[in-house]
Amino acid sequence: MGGDFGPEVAIPGAAKALERHPDIRFVLYGDAARCEPLIDQHPKLKAASTFRHCDVAVAMDEKPSQALRRGRGKSSMWLSIDAVAKGEADVAVSAGNTGALMAMSKFCLRMMANIERPAIAGIWPTLKGESIVLDIGATIGADANQLFDFALMGGAMARALFEVDRPTVGLLNVGVEEIKGQEEVKAAGQLIREANVDTIDYYGFVEGDDIGKGTVDVVVTEGFAGNIALKAAEGTARQMATYLRAAMSRTWLARLGYILAKSAFDRLREKMDPRKVNGGVFLGLNGIVIKSHGGTDAEGFAAAVDVGYDMVRNGLKDKIEKDLQKYHAGRPVGGAAQDMSDGVR
Amino acid sequence: MGGDFGPEVAIPGAAKALERHPDIRFVLYGDAARCEPLIDQHPKLKAASTFRHCDVAVAMDEKPSQALRRGRGKSSMWLSIDAVAKGEADVAVSAGNTGALMAMSKFCLRMMANIERPAIAGIWPTLKGESIVLDIGATIGADANQLFDFALMGGAMARALFEVDRPTVGLLNVGVEEIKGQEEVKAAGQLIREANVDTIDYYGFVEGDDIGKGTVDVVVTEGFAGNIALKAAEGTARQMATYLRAAMSRTWLARLGYILAKSAFDRLREKMDPRKVNGGVFLGLNGIVIKSHGGTDAEGFAAAVDVGYDMVRNGLKDKIEKDLQKYHAGRPVGGAAQDMSDGVR
Repeated sequence: MGGDFGPEVAIPGAAKALERHPDIRFVLYGDAARCEPLIDQHPKLKAASTFRHCDVAVAMDEKPSQALRRGRGKSSMWLSIDAVAKGEADVAVSAGNTGALMAMSKFCLRMMANIERPAIAGIWPTLKGESIVLDIGATIGADANQLFDFALMGGAMARALFEVDRPTVGLLNVGVEEIKGQEEVKAAGQLIREANVDTIDYYGFVEGDDIGKGTVDVVVTEGFAGNIALKAAEGTARQMATYLRAAMSRTWLARLGYILAKSAFDRLREKMDPRKVNGGVFLGLNGIVIKSHGGTDAEGFAAAVDVGYDMVRNGLKDKIEKDLQKYHAGRPVGGAAQDMSDGVR
Repeated sequence: MGGDFGPEVAIPGAAKALERHPDIRFVLYGDAARCEPLIDQHPKLKAASTFRHCDVAVAMDEKPSQALRRGRGKSSMWLSIDAVAKGEADVAVSAGNTGALMAMSKFCLRMMANIERPAIAGIWPTLKGESIVLDIGATIGADANQLFDFALMGGAMARALFEVDRPTVGLLNVGVEEIKGQEEVKAAGQLIREANVDTIDYYGFVEGDDIGKGTVDVVVTEGFAGNIALKAAEGTARQMATYLRAAMSRTWLARLGYILAKSAFDRLREKMDPRKVNGGVFLGLNGIVIKSHGGTDAEGFAAAVDVGYDMVRNGLKDKIEKDLQKYHAGRPVGGAAQDMSDGVR
């Protein structure tokens, strides 16, 4: 029911994902009057799905605490996460309200042992392929231990997603010299180095422009800087696309050139298509939840389902649990990262 | 002597700036053996300049503390800033080591009354023209009072640069809802609102993608997030340019299209030319210092000189001092922002 378009995007999106992965089985949660006619338009999806009517849907502008009060135990968002908690589903995918989705996920699935704060990991297109960036908006601030956890979890996700044995991990900072940077980031770098983690290859500090270069497989940062970096990059991509469109329609020669080079432009558009890397992965919970962009279309939603499928098929949760147990167990718990989901734990 | 290319870029750059602003008078500091032959190649510049030989030049990789020890009182960087302190120059422009330039500037010029931390303000190309973003790398962390000062100083710079009476100012945050964001950012928003500053038009919170949209004239943030946002955006712009080049050379049809649309591509390149908005302005000191990108060419260095010229001609320092006196005087001093210039105050 979530996102800017609700089931009109989610249901055709699920149908598209099913074409690519015929072994998916869906449990669809939503308002029957609105969803069932849409499901009827996709007979294959209908055959591979169970539909569960829900009276309540979380609104996009609801505060997490309000969504929890109103939607707990009965909203489509809650019930889809609850299906993961109960083992009825392997992964929940939603285009809904991010804060509410995180709050309900934490409430319903609980944090993994030893994890203090969850993270949202995004997939970032780079010159070398794709990288994972976390946290892109679950928490503000993170201490060294939490950044260390993000490195472990991001590393596990990279192994699940990119099929590399020992992904490279960098800490986002403002300079590569050891002298610079936030105290937390410096301390996290030391922690990671000293832990000698054999599931990741610690690269050191990276800067903002290293993300797009694909310098490392996993970029670790706290949620404030991560969210701002992500949105600044998205803004720049849109800005350049706007300039390009304006330049290409200014003269008839440019327009003719555009027509001749159309296949190249199509390729470029496909390369920069934000729908292809849609899907923020909630890490650190006892279950996988994928957040699709609220404004995406069916193709984008299908990509978010694909991400969930890959995470399940490649055993993300087990990988994270094993790494955390190996490298984190026994470490003292502390830290004062601020929770972005409206005070709900 | 600074930057990746030293006087080979700075001297032709100064000559270019002089063509645009024939009333500039330069005092050039550097190594005579290297600089004088270059100055001789530009007779107009030579006529408008005084050259001062310096035995020492700050290296690009020197730590600020080391640069101060080695270069204080005698390096070209120190002496050019000292000329501003002594009133012999209106503005110092350098492509050198940023940390050393900031450390020497603080030492030589001292902070303005009531200012706890300086900021580096960058000029960011946007869909609407240009915006000012600060801090992009002078300090890590900033409390509410310091963000308030950044808003005042950025506002004064916008009035000097864009010739608007009451520039719009936004605080960079991770969400527009009042509930979200860092405590410092929320508190700064309240401070600015309550101060009823009549030299700026406070817009509220903005997000990373608002920078490129040009939502506000001035974007205020602390240096860690600001630096990462800037570099993430630069990285994305380079990434898209790389994709575009690759797409345009892939097929002969695309190459033909490129040739036909070349004027459009040239226009696009000009629009995205990072040299055109070169020049970080140090704010909060008793004198104006402009940091040019170290890797720029003569055209880019000339743009940094232009920024300095505009700042002087439009009375930036007086504007900032007046605003600070009006809105800041008497406010308690405190805060724990971390200094990025290697502990040197």
